[in-house]
Amino acid sequence: MTAFVRETMTSSPADAALERFFAAGAQNLDTPEHRELWSALSAAASGGKRLRPAIFHSVYLALGGQQSAVAAEVAGAIELLHTALVIHDDVIDGDTVRRGSLNVSGTFADRARERGHGAARAGHYGDTAAILAGDLALTGAVRTLALCGAAPATVAHMLDLLDHALHLTAVGELIDVRLSMDGDADVTAAIAMEHQKTAVYSFELPLRLAAVLAGADSQYEPALATFARLLGVAYQLRDDLEGMFGDEQRIGKSALSDLREGKCTPLIAHARTTDRWPQIHPHLAAEHIDHETAERVRLLLEQCGSRAYVEELASSLADQARQSVAHLPIAGLLHEWVWAVTADAQVLR
Amino acid sequence: MTAFVRETMTSSPADAALERFFAAGAQNLDTPEHRELWSALSAAASGGKRLRPAIFHSVYLALGGQQSAVAAEVAGAIELLHTALVIHDDVIDGDTVRRGSLNVSGTFADRARERGHGAARAGHYGDTAAILAGDLALTGAVRTLALCGAAPATVAHMLDLLDHALHLTAVGELIDVRLSMDGDADVTAAIAMEHQKTAVYSFELPLRLAAVLAGADSQYEPALATFARLLGVAYQLRDDLEGMFGDEQRIGKSALSDLREGKCTPLIAHARTTDRWPQIHPHLAAEHIDHETAERVRLLLEQCGSRAYVEELASSLADQARQSVAHLPIAGLLHEWVWAVTADAQVLR
Repeated sequence: MTAFVRETMTSSPADAALERFFAAGAQNLDTPEHRELWSALSAAASGGKRLRPAIFHSVYLALGGQQSAVAAEVAGAIELLHTALVIHDDVIDGDTVRRGSLNVSGTFADRARERGHGAARAGHYGDTAAILAGDLALTGAVRTLALCGAAPATVAHMLDLLDHALHLTAVGELIDVRLSMDGDADVTAAIAMEHQKTAVYSFELPLRLAAVLAGADSQYEPALATFARLLGVAYQLRDDLEGMFGDEQRIGKSALSDLREGKCTPLIAHARTTDRWPQIHPHLAAEHIDHETAERVRLLLEQCGSRAYVEELASSLADQARQSVAHLPIAGLLHEWVWAVTADAQVLR
Repeated sequence: MTAFVRETMTSSPADAALERFFAAGAQNLDTPEHRELWSALSAAASGGKRLRPAIFHSVYLALGGQQSAVAAEVAGAIELLHTALVIHDDVIDGDTVRRGSLNVSGTFADRARERGHGAARAGHYGDTAAILAGDLALTGAVRTLALCGAAPATVAHMLDLLDHALHLTAVGELIDVRLSMDGDADVTAAIAMEHQKTAVYSFELPLRLAAVLAGADSQYEPALATFARLLGVAYQLRDDLEGMFGDEQRIGKSALSDLREGKCTPLIAHARTTDRWPQIHPHLAAEHIDHETAERVRLLLEQCGSRAYVEELASSLADQARQSVAHLPIAGLLHEWVWAVTADAQVLR
């Protein structure tokens, strides 16, 4: 990671906005449940690497943006959106751990268990809390953007971009669940799903918000959108590889979870076309999978060439991302982001 | 129902705003899943009685409000909020039917079953779609309010009211699940929960939005808030009675669902203090409950006096609601609403 990128991410403008957001929301608190819910949401919003606000903010500055107070609010909205989507995604995937700690569902389920309830009821209580915490973060993101202080026409434009991203993300998530359920997606469908589910809100939205808020020349928006799509998919492919082959301690959640959920990533979609598939397939979406079996699946995914295929695809997309913005005056910065995001995706999760 | 109230509700200003909302969102559609999700959300938003926008709009007009285009957008936001909360509430309660038809979860689960999937996977697909559709309605509500066209300071004030309502509703929902799970709430706790979960967003929010948007004298807001609290709880108590004793055809969902979910309504909390409780208790939150058993539970709830207790409480709260606004120039209108909402709650659901 270059010094610039590192610095961008250690002093995130989103932090101050999030602090204000959680302090303001705390004024509503008047019951123990409310305090617990708000504190779980606040915990969910902290500890991340602030990748999305950092990309937004660095590009905003590079494009000549100077409204630092407004930009901080937009950065906060971007991080709240990410927090909300992660919380709801975890409910949908049945995950209870995130970044090595219990997530919102896991925290509340734990409390119910402490009061003597069984797994089903505790899980239901946990999921309820997570749906509701996600709702508050999601509405908080829209509200923060609406009240960011930019000119009304700019706010309306930014709300449109957010709305469009929300639509695509929701549909990407729905397609993700359907592909995992049906289990018949090809690589193209799996990539399209990951683009919609993650790349749009993580890369395209922050970059377009930066261009709109900075009042950048209209040539920027399409170029940044193309760049974001290529970089976003590359990032997600690296993330998939990390989820399957990465060190469990480092990624902060069980490396088995993608397997257990039968996630239809491009990695798995590629493996389906190889002669090792009959050996891999039985372990997807299996109720119980142990570390030894997971190790065997990993080996099979290497032997059949799927790991190499996805690694090469990610590299090629990263190259294309670089080329797609080579003509822009801010190419240097964008190239730094390509390096930071694809060389070491986990650091940025 | 008086002619005024009936007319208010048959020509809802929310309809036009919702039509615009769904037409605008449809421009994002580019996959079959997206069309299905949007069409299921649109179906969820239609067919209701538009109670909340109607209360908002009639009071807005009575207070001298004249910005009809802005008011229509606010009315639409209020109905979208209700739609979102109902959809997420159904996920949390495991309900698949609403107003006599399959809801979002039920519709998508059905589609998965048609593709040959079993109940668990189909239910998961249905819940995923419903979480996502609710997310789009919820962000749509905030966005619609943010872009309603009122003066910026008014918009900010209205967004604050919405935010406060969202907090209380989320916590009310969480407390609802905890009370049902723990099964030890007294009547006061059950009433407080219903106030937070339903009365705040259904009555307090529309009335306060009406006062703020109409620029009404600041004497109105506290009086309307008190009125809304009393009326909202009365409404919810009538709704609980209807859910337990009402005609299944008429209420559009299984009368058994409150029993099956072990819902801790004030009705049940009261019954817990009576000598019939040992006979009632085993049938709450039971996996299977048949119509005959439900009939017996209903009879027990009458014999122990809980039905009469809740009916009298609802009447008394309705009286207090009337008295609380008797000094206001718009008392006549508000009294009509008390009558409409508590005399025949189901018509307004």
